[in-house]
Amino acid sequence: MGLALAEALLERGHPTTVWNRTPAKADGVVAGGARRAASIAEAVSASEISIICLKDYETMYGVLGPAAEALRGRTLINLNSGTPGEAAAAADWAAELGAAYLDGAIMVPPPLVGDPESVFLYSGSEDVFDEHRETLASMGAPRFLGADPGLAVLHNAALLGLMYATVNGFLHATALVGSAGVSAVEFADLAVNWFLPAVVVNPALVEQAADLEASDYPGELGTMEMNRNALEHIARTCVEQGVHADQARHMAAIAEQAIAAGHGGENYLAVYEVFKGDQAMPQRRIASRA
Amino acid sequence: MGLALAEALLERGHPTTVWNRTPAKADGVVAGGARRAASIAEAVSASEISIICLKDYETMYGVLGPAAEALRGRTLINLNSGTPGEAAAAADWAAELGAAYLDGAIMVPPPLVGDPESVFLYSGSEDVFDEHRETLASMGAPRFLGADPGLAVLHNAALLGLMYATVNGFLHATALVGSAGVSAVEFADLAVNWFLPAVVVNPALVEQAADLEASDYPGELGTMEMNRNALEHIARTCVEQGVHADQARHMAAIAEQAIAAGHGGENYLAVYEVFKGDQAMPQRRIASRA
Ligand SMILES: NC(=O)c1ccc[n+]([C@@H]2O[C@H](COP(=O)([O-])OP(=O)(O)OC[C@H]3O[C@@H](n4cnc5c(N)ncnc54)[C@H](OP(=O)(O)O)[C@@H]3O)[C@@H](O)[C@H]2O)c1
Ligand SMILES: NC(=O)c1ccc[n+]([C@@H]2O[C@H](COP(=O)([O-])OP(=O)(O)OC[C@H]3O[C@@H](n4cnc5c(N)ncnc54)[C@H](OP(=O)(O)O)[C@@H]3O)[C@@H](O)[C@H]2O)c1
Repeated sequence: MGLALAEALLERGHPTTVWNRTPAKADGVVAGGARRAASIAEAVSASEISIICLKDYETMYGVLGPAAEALRGRTLINLNSGTPGEAAAAADWAAELGAAYLDGAIMVPPPLVGDPESVFLYSGSEDVFDEHRETLASMGAPRFLGADPGLAVLHNAALLGLMYATVNGFLHATALVGSAGVSAVEFADLAVNWFLPAVVVNPALVEQAADLEASDYPGELGTMEMNRNALEHIARTCVEQGVHADQARHMAAIAEQAIAAGHGGENYLAVYEVFKGDQAMPQRRIASRA
Repeated sequence: MGLALAEALLERGHPTTVWNRTPAKADGVVAGGARRAASIAEAVSASEISIICLKDYETMYGVLGPAAEALRGRTLINLNSGTPGEAAAAADWAAELGAAYLDGAIMVPPPLVGDPESVFLYSGSEDVFDEHRETLASMGAPRFLGADPGLAVLHNAALLGLMYATVNGFLHATALVGSAGVSAVEFADLAVNWFLPAVVVNPALVEQAADLEASDYPGELGTMEMNRNALEHIARTCVEQGVHADQARHMAAIAEQAIAAGHGGENYLAVYEVFKGDQAMPQRRIASRA
């Protein structure tokens, strides 16, 4: 990912200095015009802003340790994934060093970095965001989410969770019909071109979002109990076909929890009440949008 | 659902006789031109084909018991949900009574019944399907999947499982950003209008289906280990925010199973190998497409 970021910056004409633990990985971008720093301190000292994208926050602390002095008065923009608490700790750590800090999350794989349609989420210092917006736009469309530095990684976790759930749902469904000899290609065409757009990525889901806010789940068109039954049919079908049944069982258990909490006669979206968890949790990291 | 089916048939001009355990629920369609049968045997005797849509197969056996004689020489089309084994048992039961049998599954909620875009899946007797195609088309676009009577409910389970996984993914993601005060309406707009169509319902998913067939999961653009780490970030973020973490943990555990099975350096789609389960399972209901 670091390579993709450096390439995108170079392409838009930004003078770019690179550093990586394994220096040889940068050979390509160096040939393409990037300057190679011999140390992390040299890399940080070379520019007003440093964009860092390592495995995680722990790795960042280890790598930037020798550059602590160089960071004072400069700006650090960190794009690795993590939790809101880790992002907040990184912002505090940067503040102690006297560095301006912006946290971010990349919502695309490396080949899509630099594409103006690719979204990069940011949160923390709005000043840093505004001042360097044009540089950030070289990597992908920048979107600022708020002053709490954890908001970018929080949205990243939410959106990736949604992506994994959908991809898992697709793969599991493919495995289920595959158990009867239906080809993945045939099923993908049916599911992705016909079923998903019509049923899932539906403007109705956006409309119903207001009902989530209001905890309003009218059950006239179908109840949680009906949906629990459907999920049990699915789980039993998996068992019959020898296909992984935990995903369907897990979803049936969540519907069952919703029924136990009194939502049996409401519609399926009431599982939202189960997902929300403990609203009054005192140690929750981001309690309301900053 | 039975009401919606009767209404659709009446609308297209099919003489329709109705029966339901609670007769009053049919008052509306009776006012709209349906004939009310006093008994299930009378209902079955009134027409060449009987379309039945009750809670499940067990309920169907209970209800149709008194109509066993009337079914001989007639055609039964059953649209309730269930498992492939239950559908096969129902086909055998109908054959013993001397009735032609078609199994089906309705892929839309009641308000969409009768819409020519609504898909109804069928499997079992292709003769019944061909002969009554026009009648079936009154309820929604009929699609025949094969001679094994279980194929319709198998596809139903697969597609509904996909739908539940996606809706759960969406609701859980909404709960996660909601924990920081982000409104469901705002997030739905971001997720459904920008993220889902671009990332999930992507022609790439259809293209990659051929890789599933071939168990070919090249890891150049991202590995299972990277994805396991991402899923753990998501689970830890849920814990930090006090939001339900089981869904993310469940998906991380599946990625971990894939790694344990040797797919750590392959791409994420290799979780398909976990989902497929026991390919050699002897008692699998539908072993290959009939
Ligand atoms: N790849 C994607 O599709 C994608 C998409 C969005 C966000 N992200 C996020 O971007 C970040 C980077 O991802 P990635 O794809 O580049 O893979 P990664 O494996 O998460 O990170 C690799 C980078 O971290 C460095 N690194 C790891 N351990 C280190 C250590 N102990 N000391 C020094 N450097 C160390 C590696 O250096 P070496 O080269 O020396 O090993 C390399 O530069 C992650 O947080 C990831 O979640 C990735
Ligand atoms: N609703 C949907 O969105 C939808 C979509 C696709 C497929 N389906 C499938 O369609 C089938 C019917 O669904 P539904 O929505 O109508 O709700 P349901 O609760 O699954 O079925 C209700 C029907 O079953 C009858 N019934 C239940 N127990 C009975 C018993 N012991 N004896 C006699 N009749 C009994 C009810 O009669 P009473 O009126 O007397 O209670 C009513 O006619 C189900 O298999 C469902 O999975 C539903």
